[in-house]
Amino acid sequence: MKEFDLIGRYFADGGHQRKDVIIGIGDDCAVTSVPSNQQLAITTDTLVSGVHFLRDSPARSVAYKAVAVNLSDLAAMGAEPAWISLSLSMSEVDEAWLEEFVKGLYELTRYYSVQLIGGDTVRGPLAMTITAQGFIPPDVALKRSTAKPGDWIYVTGTTGDAGAGLALLKGELSAKENDEAYLVKRHLYPTPRVAVGTALRRIASSCIDVSDGLLADLNHILALSSCGATVHVDRLPVSSALFSTVGAQDAYRYALTAGDDYELIFTVNEEQRGNLETSLASTGVKATCIGQVTGHKGKVDLKLYDDPYVLSDKVGYEHEF
Amino acid sequence: MKEFDLIGRYFADGGHQRKDVIIGIGDDCAVTSVPSNQQLAITTDTLVSGVHFLRDSPARSVAYKAVAVNLSDLAAMGAEPAWISLSLSMSEVDEAWLEEFVKGLYELTRYYSVQLIGGDTVRGPLAMTITAQGFIPPDVALKRSTAKPGDWIYVTGTTGDAGAGLALLKGELSAKENDEAYLVKRHLYPTPRVAVGTALRRIASSCIDVSDGLLADLNHILALSSCGATVHVDRLPVSSALFSTVGAQDAYRYALTAGDDYELIFTVNEEQRGNLETSLASTGVKATCIGQVTGHKGKVDLKLYDDPYVLSDKVGYEHEF
Repeated sequence: MKEFDLIGRYFADGGHQRKDVIIGIGDDCAVTSVPSNQQLAITTDTLVSGVHFLRDSPARSVAYKAVAVNLSDLAAMGAEPAWISLSLSMSEVDEAWLEEFVKGLYELTRYYSVQLIGGDTVRGPLAMTITAQGFIPPDVALKRSTAKPGDWIYVTGTTGDAGAGLALLKGELSAKENDEAYLVKRHLYPTPRVAVGTALRRIASSCIDVSDGLLADLNHILALSSCGATVHVDRLPVSSALFSTVGAQDAYRYALTAGDDYELIFTVNEEQRGNLETSLASTGVKATCIGQVTGHKGKVDLKLYDDPYVLSDKVGYEHEF
Repeated sequence: MKEFDLIGRYFADGGHQRKDVIIGIGDDCAVTSVPSNQQLAITTDTLVSGVHFLRDSPARSVAYKAVAVNLSDLAAMGAEPAWISLSLSMSEVDEAWLEEFVKGLYELTRYYSVQLIGGDTVRGPLAMTITAQGFIPPDVALKRSTAKPGDWIYVTGTTGDAGAGLALLKGELSAKENDEAYLVKRHLYPTPRVAVGTALRRIASSCIDVSDGLLADLNHILALSSCGATVHVDRLPVSSALFSTVGAQDAYRYALTAGDDYELIFTVNEEQRGNLETSLASTGVKATCIGQVTGHKGKVDLKLYDDPYVLSDKVGYEHEF
């Protein structure tokens, strides 16, 4: 057996076992069963060492994040996660690293009842590609292209934290111990908003997750929906840790432009706002209304209270570590 | 828009359009529909430059092969291919390379009516991961673990060609012009045995594709089925190009141990041999009976006519280019 086939042994049990997995890891393919009343949502994301995570990131974080960003894409579509496949490229077999990696992987998949159904392990620079699949009933997928002028814009949780966490890890910022721990954790162990995603089915008019930064990702919705927006910077949900670390002005900058928070941005029309409140209550996750979709295609008006807000340089989060 | 998002434009149309793709490329996830009487077969394979293909391989070949190895895994399970996701890692944006890559990708996906439904493009060393999905009726998946003593062992097409093609490209062999063209083509543009895979449903007792080499892959079946085998080396299907390039002794060695042919090895019990002949006739692909499964767990007897055959060093195909 080749050295790299051995790596497969670390993943052999697939973690959480699902009844809809007919054949799991170990054959040419996995075989699974999709409920007859559901469609399949499929997403693929790759993380490369030194590009998408710091070279010295803990293995547990790397795996956790690789799963989280994929589950976040499912959540942004309103899908319920089911299975993942993992392709792992490593330059050498490092057993201690692998053990921690498996720990991080199964931590998140067990929590969300997701089964690892297969993959590949190859020799190469450290990188991993996960394909995640989930279920969604017909005609309820949350798209980017279906926001309408007048819809309210919401964002879950707080944004900017992960970007500040990264800056702390790179030594570009300093913070009080508790704040640093919180912000770094937001960068290393992001929470995919899985329950919110399914709660938004039939309620949100569009949805996307925050990977590139709030403004950049909102712009994806606006571009595909041929709309514009007014965003009230003073209403942005900012954590007290971020606020006390960088101050108000920079907190807005982080909240608007830093990436990797994996919160959801979504739009809701006026009639659905009541349903939204009820539906979100069941998830225990707070969402904040930060503005409104307009008909001014391609134009985003930032406001601080009643004045126009001019964004200074963005945090410059360009996936270049 | 970031430089690497631009790469996505090369893949934006997804090639062949399928009616079961509800949402294709461009949102957080693709959304697809699985026929209610079918299960889903899923496989993931990664190709790394310098490990799984030569660094100077033509881009068209790299894409073609990346798709082919995944469709080959679906074929080995008896599944009918439907969709692929592609994650492409490149160190820089090379438009000429990308155009050829897309050509190779869509060449094969169009032929097999497969749609590219999504993926990711990242900055990193040249590598790609494809996840392929296909349909298979319940309870007919061709597994590795279900061969029985007495079953006949078959292999499609010819084996050893791709390994000789690689040796030619590396300058380790020389051949007549026509033979070289044939063998190199077998290495660069392997044919996944998709039609054979579905034809073997309910007929073969086990199946695997030849990626590591005939003996190594047969051993995967035998290990999981707790069996052994007798293999008649004189009956191995060897192309005339391979035969005339390396001679009989080395042709056997290539046929037994070289990898990347993506033929199918399968087992069939005595009662199914008639059905096999009828079913294969419809595919136009020849399969050759090369031996028989035995109850001698873990033991493979190689025979040349009636004598034991001792395998000299294997070709040494270890995915190290």
